[in-house]
Amino acid sequence: MTKVTVYRHEHFNAAHRLHNPNLDDAENRRIFGKCNSPNYHGHNYELVVAVTGEIDPVTGYVIDLGTLSALVKREILDRFDHRNLNLDVEEFSARNPTAENIVVTIYELLRPHLDAGLELQITLGETPRNLVRYPAGGPQ
Amino acid sequence: MTKVTVYRHEHFNAAHRLHNPNLDDAENRRIFGKCNSPNYHGHNYELVVAVTGEIDPVTGYVIDLGTLSALVKREILDRFDHRNLNLDVEEFSARNPTAENIVVTIYELLRPHLDAGLELQITLGETPRNLVRYPAGGPQ
Amino acid sequence: MTKVTVYRHEHFNAAHRLHNPNLDDAENRRIFGKCNSPNYHGHNYELVVAVTGEIDPVTGYVIDLGTLSALVKREILDRFDHRNLNLDVEEFSARNPTAENIVVTIYELLRPHLDAGLELQITLGETPRNLVRYPAGGPQ
Amino acid sequence: MTKVTVYRHEHFNAAHRLHNPNLDDAENRRIFGKCNSPNYHGHNYELVVAVTGEIDPVTGYVIDLGTLSALVKREILDRFDHRNLNLDVEEFSARNPTAENIVVTIYELLRPHLDAGLELQITLGETPRNLVRYPAGGPQ
Amino acid sequence: MTKVTVYRHEHFNAAHRLHNPNLDDAENRRIFGKCNSPNYHGHNYELVVAVTGEIDPVTGYVIDLGTLSALVKREILDRFDHRNLNLDVEEFSARNPTAENIVVTIYELLRPHLDAGLELQITLGETPRNLVRYPAGGPQ
Amino acid sequence: MTKVTVYRHEHFNAAHRLHNPNLDDAENRRIFGKCNSPNYHGHNYELVVAVTGEIDPVTGYVIDLGTLSALVKREILDRFDHRNLNLDVEEFSARNPTAENIVVTIYELLRPHLDAGLELQITLGETPRNLVRYPAGGPQ
Repeated sequence: MTKVTVYRHEHFNAAHRLHNPNLDDAENRRIFGKCNSPNYHGHNYELVVAVTGEIDPVTGYVIDLGTLSALVKREILDRFDHRNLNLDVEEFSARNPTAENIVVTIYELLRPHLDAGLELQITLGETPRNLVRYPAGGPQ
Repeated sequence: MTKVTVYRHEHFNAAHRLHNPNLDDAENRRIFGKCNSPNYHGHNYELVVAVTGEIDPVTGYVIDLGTLSALVKREILDRFDHRNLNLDVEEFSARNPTAENIVVTIYELLRPHLDAGLELQITLGETPRNLVRYPAGGPQ
Repeated sequence: MTKVTVYRHEHFNAAHRLHNPNLDDAENRRIFGKCNSPNYHGHNYELVVAVTGEIDPVTGYVIDLGTLSALVKREILDRFDHRNLNLDVEEFSARNPTAENIVVTIYELLRPHLDAGLELQITLGETPRNLVRYPAGGPQ
Repeated sequence: MTKVTVYRHEHFNAAHRLHNPNLDDAENRRIFGKCNSPNYHGHNYELVVAVTGEIDPVTGYVIDLGTLSALVKREILDRFDHRNLNLDVEEFSARNPTAENIVVTIYELLRPHLDAGLELQITLGETPRNLVRYPAGGPQ
Repeated sequence: MTKVTVYRHEHFNAAHRLHNPNLDDAENRRIFGKCNSPNYHGHNYELVVAVTGEIDPVTGYVIDLGTLSALVKREILDRFDHRNLNLDVEEFSARNPTAENIVVTIYELLRPHLDAGLELQITLGETPRNLVRYPAGGPQ
Repeated sequence: MTKVTVYRHEHFNAAHRLHNPNLDDAENRRIFGKCNSPNYHGHNYELVVAVTGEIDPVTGYVIDLGTLSALVKREILDRFDHRNLNLDVEEFSARNPTAENIVVTIYELLRPHLDAGLELQITLGETPRNLVRYPAGGPQ
């Protein structure tokens, strides 16, 4: 059994603000600092979708990267790109859009659309120096 | 006369929206597309400040890059980073924050703080694939 | 007059072979080395299209980057991408596809489609360590 | 036991074409799209060779990277670089040179030359946005 | 249990020399080549600190990256940056500063300052083409 | 006349220290800060050699990049790489090895070996965020 991991890089640009409505303003400011700035700021999010599975003997592919890219476009980019994550994306109406929460959300949105025999792992770069990955560890 | 150009890379993260208040909504949407999205989106802006001048024979420097970096922090980053350019930065209260207008604004903010004998040129990356430079041409 | 340069990054993947039909095989091998390999090799070509002009006061743009990107797609990518430059692209039927000749060809294909008031400069990366630019010098 | 992974980056430029001779032309075109283009296209392949093992107390090395680099040059680069993978490399005479099949082939070519106590993992970038890894998961 | 890995990129510039005092000069030269050059050479070391843990439901963070960055600055950068690793950093007074030994040392210096429930993995780039990771495998 | 600029990327690793022997220790420390650290520190220097000239109609080249790379190796890399610039490179025995002075020195060492009809410009990256160029302005 020859399992290979394939990686597809995508990106989107979005505004966000870190804020926990259960905490008061001073506490939000103390925890989130300038990321709590009230009128939002934004990022070029770099997204890497890693899919692990066996090579199909007919195509030589684990998964067609065109199909994978179209899936990411439909489920993630069309809903997150050039949007305000807090205001425009329902998944973050009650979930603080930290990089950690965004990467888990992206995983949850993509996972149901992949065959059960394929493993999925998502990496998200919020800036070139700050990245997150879910599930932790594993293929990439 | 030995003129050298030195480059210092900085970055900031900000939200913005492209919108011309003199045009109606349909026209704004037609010209600016998803960049006109009403609740803002954002970018990791990559900033390169290029300064051209003669090498100081005592220091071997054109300009101390620590001094240059502190100037950029004070005049640009402290005012633009983790902000909404349209709402939080007065220079864009009446100027559409396109990459072109941002790069000219940064030049105008830094130019008065550099010696007259030094040339200045600013490059701004809005995404890894879209960049602008002002003044056009020249040192970099 | 506020002239700004804008840069758009694109890329294409192509096969090529360096060969001058006016020289014999030994001479071709001596000049072009492994780049003369008979069955072709290939590259991920990184293309930067730089356009210099004044900022339009209505849009805040020098040129709409969506329009520029669509032009590059139609004139260059649709004809060069995933092709064999020697066999599939007529411009190289009688012109050796060195990086220098490719960058001049791209300039010649794009120049007629831009307004006369805009300056154009093309940079082409053949590998991350070998790049070319035409016209030499100038905006970028 | 102090196991460390060391990574060596190499690269090669090659032409290839995706094609399964057991399928007819229409089916090849449907599955492989422009990658099935008959006269080949090409890539700058980025190769990362990851070796995991214990640190040698005399040298402080897991493996001498000069030795590893020379091995990769002899077994992979001298045979793949500036070649047509389909026509010039015997391993692909009957194996479709998808990124997945190339990365497995490189692993198979290098594995016999490393000590049994060392683990090996190969990552191959076909473009900056499409990468593959074999074995899946693990050290990198 | 939702475990996520977060990555923080830092860097430092240092001089070093590879030398084993238990070996004679000829043997040191044979093993370490130009890295044994007597007056030292140097690198821009790229450091990635990966921390794996559960997302805190109050903050949405695995660990505050500002806190993590300050820890790395205090324990590593303030002691390694712009120094000679062999002469100025006591950990290398009796340990050859190969990339492998440096990455293990950084792990040992940071590990005691992180909560027991968090996993730590360090990646160190000595050049863009030579990197090391400790512990081997796992999260990144 | 079709002038094109070609760029070749090279790199070397070296130790250095910024120090002006005509100034006392306190003044050196004040001006050069941690770059004055007595036991040296170091960098991965990224070097870009830009050569501008007409395309040779026989080869399609401005200059053979293999020839250019061999010249840079012989004149610069073999003398600077894995060395201490202050102690091992005679050009810096009486010239403070700031990035500005290094880039001018590299230009002076390469210029005599290129045809008079070719223009030369050198860019040197000391870190990914600090770069210098000589002559200022022009082709790159």
